[in-house]
Amino acid sequence: MAETQLMDFKVDEIFDLFLLLKGADVRTAKNGKRFIHLTFADSSGELAGNLWDASEQDINAFVAGKVVLVRGKKELYQGNSQIKVMHLRLANDSEPNDPAQFVAHGPMTTSEMEEEISQIIFEITNPEWNRVVRAVLQRHIERFYQFPAAKKNHHAFAGGLAFHTISIVRLAKTVADLHPNINRSLLYAGALLHDLGKTIELSGPIATSYTLAGNLIGHIVLVDEEIVNVCAELHFDPESEEMLLLRHMILAHHGLLEYGSPVRPRILEAEVLHDLDELDASIQMMSSAVEQTVPGEFSERIFGLDGRSFYRPELGERN
Amino acid sequence: MAETQLMDFKVDEIFDLFLLLKGADVRTAKNGKRFIHLTFADSSGELAGNLWDASEQDINAFVAGKVVLVRGKKELYQGNSQIKVMHLRLANDSEPNDPAQFVAHGPMTTSEMEEEISQIIFEITNPEWNRVVRAVLQRHIERFYQFPAAKKNHHAFAGGLAFHTISIVRLAKTVADLHPNINRSLLYAGALLHDLGKTIELSGPIATSYTLAGNLIGHIVLVDEEIVNVCAELHFDPESEEMLLLRHMILAHHGLLEYGSPVRPRILEAEVLHDLDELDASIQMMSSAVEQTVPGEFSERIFGLDGRSFYRPELGERN
Amino acid sequence: MAETQLMDFKVDEIFDLFLLLKGADVRTAKNGKRFIHLTFADSSGELAGNLWDASEQDINAFVAGKVVLVRGKKELYQGNSQIKVMHLRLANDSEPNDPAQFVAHGPMTTSEMEEEISQIIFEITNPEWNRVVRAVLQRHIERFYQFPAAKKNHHAFAGGLAFHTISIVRLAKTVADLHPNINRSLLYAGALLHDLGKTIELSGPIATSYTLAGNLIGHIVLVDEEIVNVCAELHFDPESEEMLLLRHMILAHHGLLEYGSPVRPRILEAEVLHDLDELDASIQMMSSAVEQTVPGEFSERIFGLDGRSFYRPELGERN
Amino acid sequence: MAETQLMDFKVDEIFDLFLLLKGADVRTAKNGKRFIHLTFADSSGELAGNLWDASEQDINAFVAGKVVLVRGKKELYQGNSQIKVMHLRLANDSEPNDPAQFVAHGPMTTSEMEEEISQIIFEITNPEWNRVVRAVLQRHIERFYQFPAAKKNHHAFAGGLAFHTISIVRLAKTVADLHPNINRSLLYAGALLHDLGKTIELSGPIATSYTLAGNLIGHIVLVDEEIVNVCAELHFDPESEEMLLLRHMILAHHGLLEYGSPVRPRILEAEVLHDLDELDASIQMMSSAVEQTVPGEFSERIFGLDGRSFYRPELGERN
Amino acid sequence: MAETQLMDFKVDEIFDLFLLLKGADVRTAKNGKRFIHLTFADSSGELAGNLWDASEQDINAFVAGKVVLVRGKKELYQGNSQIKVMHLRLANDSEPNDPAQFVAHGPMTTSEMEEEISQIIFEITNPEWNRVVRAVLQRHIERFYQFPAAKKNHHAFAGGLAFHTISIVRLAKTVADLHPNINRSLLYAGALLHDLGKTIELSGPIATSYTLAGNLIGHIVLVDEEIVNVCAELHFDPESEEMLLLRHMILAHHGLLEYGSPVRPRILEAEVLHDLDELDASIQMMSSAVEQTVPGEFSERIFGLDGRSFYRPELGERN
Amino acid sequence: MAETQLMDFKVDEIFDLFLLLKGADVRTAKNGKRFIHLTFADSSGELAGNLWDASEQDINAFVAGKVVLVRGKKELYQGNSQIKVMHLRLANDSEPNDPAQFVAHGPMTTSEMEEEISQIIFEITNPEWNRVVRAVLQRHIERFYQFPAAKKNHHAFAGGLAFHTISIVRLAKTVADLHPNINRSLLYAGALLHDLGKTIELSGPIATSYTLAGNLIGHIVLVDEEIVNVCAELHFDPESEEMLLLRHMILAHHGLLEYGSPVRPRILEAEVLHDLDELDASIQMMSSAVEQTVPGEFSERIFGLDGRSFYRPELGERN
Repeated sequence: MAETQLMDFKVDEIFDLFLLLKGADVRTAKNGKRFIHLTFADSSGELAGNLWDASEQDINAFVAGKVVLVRGKKELYQGNSQIKVMHLRLANDSEPNDPAQFVAHGPMTTSEMEEEISQIIFEITNPEWNRVVRAVLQRHIERFYQFPAAKKNHHAFAGGLAFHTISIVRLAKTVADLHPNINRSLLYAGALLHDLGKTIELSGPIATSYTLAGNLIGHIVLVDEEIVNVCAELHFDPESEEMLLLRHMILAHHGLLEYGSPVRPRILEAEVLHDLDELDASIQMMSSAVEQTVPGEFSERIFGLDGRSFYRPELGERN
Repeated sequence: MAETQLMDFKVDEIFDLFLLLKGADVRTAKNGKRFIHLTFADSSGELAGNLWDASEQDINAFVAGKVVLVRGKKELYQGNSQIKVMHLRLANDSEPNDPAQFVAHGPMTTSEMEEEISQIIFEITNPEWNRVVRAVLQRHIERFYQFPAAKKNHHAFAGGLAFHTISIVRLAKTVADLHPNINRSLLYAGALLHDLGKTIELSGPIATSYTLAGNLIGHIVLVDEEIVNVCAELHFDPESEEMLLLRHMILAHHGLLEYGSPVRPRILEAEVLHDLDELDASIQMMSSAVEQTVPGEFSERIFGLDGRSFYRPELGERN
Repeated sequence: MAETQLMDFKVDEIFDLFLLLKGADVRTAKNGKRFIHLTFADSSGELAGNLWDASEQDINAFVAGKVVLVRGKKELYQGNSQIKVMHLRLANDSEPNDPAQFVAHGPMTTSEMEEEISQIIFEITNPEWNRVVRAVLQRHIERFYQFPAAKKNHHAFAGGLAFHTISIVRLAKTVADLHPNINRSLLYAGALLHDLGKTIELSGPIATSYTLAGNLIGHIVLVDEEIVNVCAELHFDPESEEMLLLRHMILAHHGLLEYGSPVRPRILEAEVLHDLDELDASIQMMSSAVEQTVPGEFSERIFGLDGRSFYRPELGERN
Repeated sequence: MAETQLMDFKVDEIFDLFLLLKGADVRTAKNGKRFIHLTFADSSGELAGNLWDASEQDINAFVAGKVVLVRGKKELYQGNSQIKVMHLRLANDSEPNDPAQFVAHGPMTTSEMEEEISQIIFEITNPEWNRVVRAVLQRHIERFYQFPAAKKNHHAFAGGLAFHTISIVRLAKTVADLHPNINRSLLYAGALLHDLGKTIELSGPIATSYTLAGNLIGHIVLVDEEIVNVCAELHFDPESEEMLLLRHMILAHHGLLEYGSPVRPRILEAEVLHDLDELDASIQMMSSAVEQTVPGEFSERIFGLDGRSFYRPELGERN
Repeated sequence: MAETQLMDFKVDEIFDLFLLLKGADVRTAKNGKRFIHLTFADSSGELAGNLWDASEQDINAFVAGKVVLVRGKKELYQGNSQIKVMHLRLANDSEPNDPAQFVAHGPMTTSEMEEEISQIIFEITNPEWNRVVRAVLQRHIERFYQFPAAKKNHHAFAGGLAFHTISIVRLAKTVADLHPNINRSLLYAGALLHDLGKTIELSGPIATSYTLAGNLIGHIVLVDEEIVNVCAELHFDPESEEMLLLRHMILAHHGLLEYGSPVRPRILEAEVLHDLDELDASIQMMSSAVEQTVPGEFSERIFGLDGRSFYRPELGERN
Repeated sequence: MAETQLMDFKVDEIFDLFLLLKGADVRTAKNGKRFIHLTFADSSGELAGNLWDASEQDINAFVAGKVVLVRGKKELYQGNSQIKVMHLRLANDSEPNDPAQFVAHGPMTTSEMEEEISQIIFEITNPEWNRVVRAVLQRHIERFYQFPAAKKNHHAFAGGLAFHTISIVRLAKTVADLHPNINRSLLYAGALLHDLGKTIELSGPIATSYTLAGNLIGHIVLVDEEIVNVCAELHFDPESEEMLLLRHMILAHHGLLEYGSPVRPRILEAEVLHDLDELDASIQMMSSAVEQTVPGEFSERIFGLDGRSFYRPELGERN
């Protein structure tokens, strides 16, 4: 991979880069000819570009998931950066061509995250919750450290799901320190499992789409069912207060029925989990958008925040 | 039980009746003295009344679930009928004192309903759905024929849940006859299970309240979990298309996220089930309200229908 | 008309077909040249396609309502099928060129529908409603059997209005069988007239648009006025309870003020009519969308159902 | 009628007054005894009061519509003035006992209003609209000058409907002077008829309630039907642009579907009529509420203005 | 400036006109080449057009704010008029090239408006309000007579802000004549200042955009702060009732919190100001849209009026 | 003050306590006699009770703000605890009668809070923000440490405003540690000032009501004005980016226009401040409600949390 990455180039600069094709849609232009709308990515970010007058051969070769060598120029199109594709070919075996190397990562390594998750589980002192959390997590452990937290918007990078989970627990610690009446075990247990259903709801870390289970059941209920299954394995009563509380933490974590929770939070810890989940997702969405904005300007509108755009101050680091 | 029933008396008439106490709340009047706010019922309906200046002994004796002998007068209080309690004592063992005899029933007997349900199951020709439906239903079969369909509002009588289920299936048949593209097995299977979770959500047919599972999980998810459990027993894959479709029928049957479904209907049969469920519940609520209204007047406002009141025409049967 | 119809061809197949031009908009491409955006139809359905670099002569010839002979290829454009127009000319007099032959029809013939409508009227036993219904229907009888039920969305085929009416009455029968307190005459009378105003609101069965009366008054009030007029003719008192009830059935049938009803349903039969109307329209919209979808995929989003898309199961007929 | 009127007395003052009973509801107190909740009025305003321990004879004598002689004291009850009834008897024939004398009136006499309405009609220069307006108005002319504009809230005094109409036309003149593109005839014609249906919707000027036509049809559609009827009489085409425009003015004047208009304003004049109607009603509601408030305090909450209360400044006239 | 103006030409007519470039966005076409999307204007209105295949030199020359000589043809593109640019060059010094001459103006000259504003201030008889209004107005007096009332939509012409202010005061006079309880000084004072913050919120009369203060603070609070500042200068107590009332007039004038007022109107005069503000803005938006519509057709949809389109009657002046 | 406090007694226990009268409303009972509705408080909480048949002398003596000696019994009235007043007299000078001793306090002492606030200010490294924060805070410093954070609901104890502020800053630290792109100085500065306007909006710590400035301007704008005033004093440009950012933090902190912010958050730090403000207020409201609830039951409904009630688990400390 080149040292200078995709997002480092300025508008009008020309580059030669190995990039991952994250998407490749065949379309027909208004003049009747076909072109491929491509999404190029490396770990610095992603940009779109079109391959005009695409041949059948192009269409078969340039599909999502392939690594390609691109000569291109960064351009502005209706206010957004895109790539003008000047030359394009598939990477060969002697060149960088492992898709995993071109995917964006979060600020922590997998092993750092594993260590912190392990410590959090240790702090769940209630033995039933501790065992259920470990059993449910174990069923999806590999995907938990690989998946993004969402198809787009927030924590949309590999490992984003685990990092989002850790961020919520760190905030939860401060909240529990301020409010000793909060049940720390319950809050941590809920935080660890709350979004785990996304490993079933989403197809995978690279060409992320919704599965049929995701569309017809949804990640919230999918985790709840896992808890019920694990209860059967561990011979815990799923109707005990402890298990009802834990399931409620998951079921209620979207906060409002309109957002897909079948019940609203009815215990303190469930409301706190919901609030911290929203807080962390919002910050991540705003940070991504503002980072890509010139100081003194407003960012693009963020769909997940009611279409608001956010201002990047000029004073910057000076404060 | 007297031949003339509670709802047959007119305002200002005096009666002596054996009645069930459905509710008994101890309150303090503005003059500082205690009274008991009582809800009296027989199979014709229910009315409230107060026992003024209640002694400790009264408070201990007159509790919900007891059958009492009442001498009372029907009165109007702010537009509603209520009972002015003139004398009150508990029924003794030689008198009618079985609460079950004082509860309202629907238009079909239990055995008629059992027969029709059995026939419906027979028409679910898909063998997996057929087995799942029978297994889930079997787990709650007794309560299915005893429970009301709701705490109040619609089908709030013993057996209301089963009768509501049957009504939906009858409508579903007409719909499926009109639209041959509808999957009849799926629609019937969803209809049979859709509200079964109410047997877990509600405490019972007489002093109906919400259980903790009802409050924290809700009847929709409770049935979904039962299906997942039954799949494990029967060694069916819960992630097969067939099982996802059936679970979706249940999860989506409230139609809107705001009404507690974690997903909106995404298959034709799920939307139809939702629409028929609403239709049948609305008709039941309106019919109850209009029945208690004098021709030429508007009924009381119905909470479950946006607070609307409904007019009972004078022309009556003549049409 | 060719035996293989427009919707039978697969993507990339080439065909020669006589087709009706349902729409023809002249537009300017981004390169400054004119093209015509055409909508082609036969009784199997409709597809769009562009005639590029259109001459003045083309623009004058290819207008909505004409039958043309097309050589074309079915293509995918942004997920939707469209026609790549390879050759195009008007049909001549010795060829199929009657627009009426290229319009989609519902599942019943006009004479079957007439017979069923006639039977329904017979079952309106109240003599005043019976006479009013017949008189109002008579004023628009021809259009009633020709018009679609809506400009697009549901029952958007010739005869759709009458077929939608019949479907509602069939459902109404099942409802009335279940609930003997429903006034069957009133429900049928309301069902027969409820959408008749669409024959005034819409311009016609082929190039359907809204009339000025449709835009400024709306089909709901237009029928109500017809009833008032007919009352004058028949010397019925429009303020009698019977006529108020019938008018209310029409005025309230959209259910909510937001949907254009000036009053919400205040009688049982009006609420039922509204619910059945919505049910039948929804099923029709979903059925159309799902029919055009490959098994295992989600349909296009349906505007009239909150933009939801619907899944077409793979298990198909097997159930 | 006494010179000092009901609203002139201060809290704790005792008075002897002839007053109209606007309402008389028999209720049962918490101690089981009956009382009558009375609404007393003269032309200065109205106040409530209770007659405790009411006998059968009292209940038969003191009914709505009667004039009574009251000895009472003004009291505060939960922040509102009310009357403590010390003595009560019916007025006899030699005393003031004409209910019409005890009803509040607006700032103009009937003959002043007749003159102004007559002048407005004169300014409707379009002959068709002029004739229709006169014909429709003539059908309800007596009630037009007697009725309130609403059951409660705004212009709830005798003659309020005509005065509200005149106020709107005066505002309309200023608007039309500012905007010469407005069709003055159409705006005046719409203003004159817009609320006339209230003479059918409401039972009368004294014990105002909704009629069945009011509940099932609503005053908006009731006027539209009158226009259609008058068109038939005058042999005007109800589907001509002129008549569609006039009917649209009426149908759209509530502005939003949610407020009962079956169509939203689609012509400039209809939007203006709606805005002026709301403006005048709001001012009237606020003025009434503020008038009854002590300077330096907030008024009661006004239901028709989203429950807001309004501040009465201390600086008062000084400005 | 040519005698025949931009908006006078018909579709397909060719013209040579000096026009102001109100906007100039560089974009890339689907064929990969750059073009400039231009907005041309003179005092009769504005139209868009594209300069295809734009060179670097074109991009540098044709920027917003320049006057150009255009040879063009009026065309229809998707129902809207636009300009097909046939030739384009900058105006030279001997030709009309003052941007101010190409801007639309309202119906009053600046000096007429100054005179009327001066008279209105004279009628604010409360001396404190009179002085505050004059002081605040003086700070922005030049911009007050130059600015539009909004970026687009209503009164979007030079001087629109002052004309909108005057229109509101004229309506306010009629209202105050009808309702003598209204504090005329307060209503006029609020009307004069209500939108003055737009001179800070918007960048200027020609290439109008939002300033940072506009985005982060908003014009409502910006005026309130000016009043507080002026109070300090004049040694008035900002917490006196008089100053609180005046500030409340400004803060509440958007009527609803959703529309950006931090408080809802809590005094009569504030509600009236809000209503008149909305009324005047609506009429202006509708008038502009209808003026550009052919009689017998509906206008474009107006964003600020919920996307409604408005009908322009054919009967026109005849009424 | 007695060692056992008001909230320590159980239902039916009789006590003799010195208590503060937080409220005293004179009302008339349904039997026509006056009573005083009293709110009694000590630092453990507050309860209501009625003094029946109150004399003029009682009404004059027992007013809000007085300390009284009460003999009373704790009772249940419609599910809530209240006091049955058995005897009541004013405390004399030799008895505890300082109202300040009977007010509830938060978990930190004033001096602990002062120290922490001082440290936070020290961490605002931007010198302009640092000076503005100190100057604005200084103007209201005494009230800042005495006031509750709200009239009721959250942090409704003396010192609640300062404690709420500190809680937010502690959460802000964790957030800023997780997200290094956040401007810590700006977030702390905004947090310190965000609710300071409540010292102007509310009348005081004991008989808390809204001031006229509170009602007509609101606490959000009141702080913004203070910043503008302080800028003038310190000769800072209020339109500099730094000051616009700080003012925006305050103006936007309610998050939504519907909640009274005149602008929505448009910078990252403003959104975070809003989210933390809501989070802390919610937790405080839930904690108060749950604390007063028996384990295994649901709390009272919390108005500020959409009327939800919260469950207090039985498992309690064991976790």
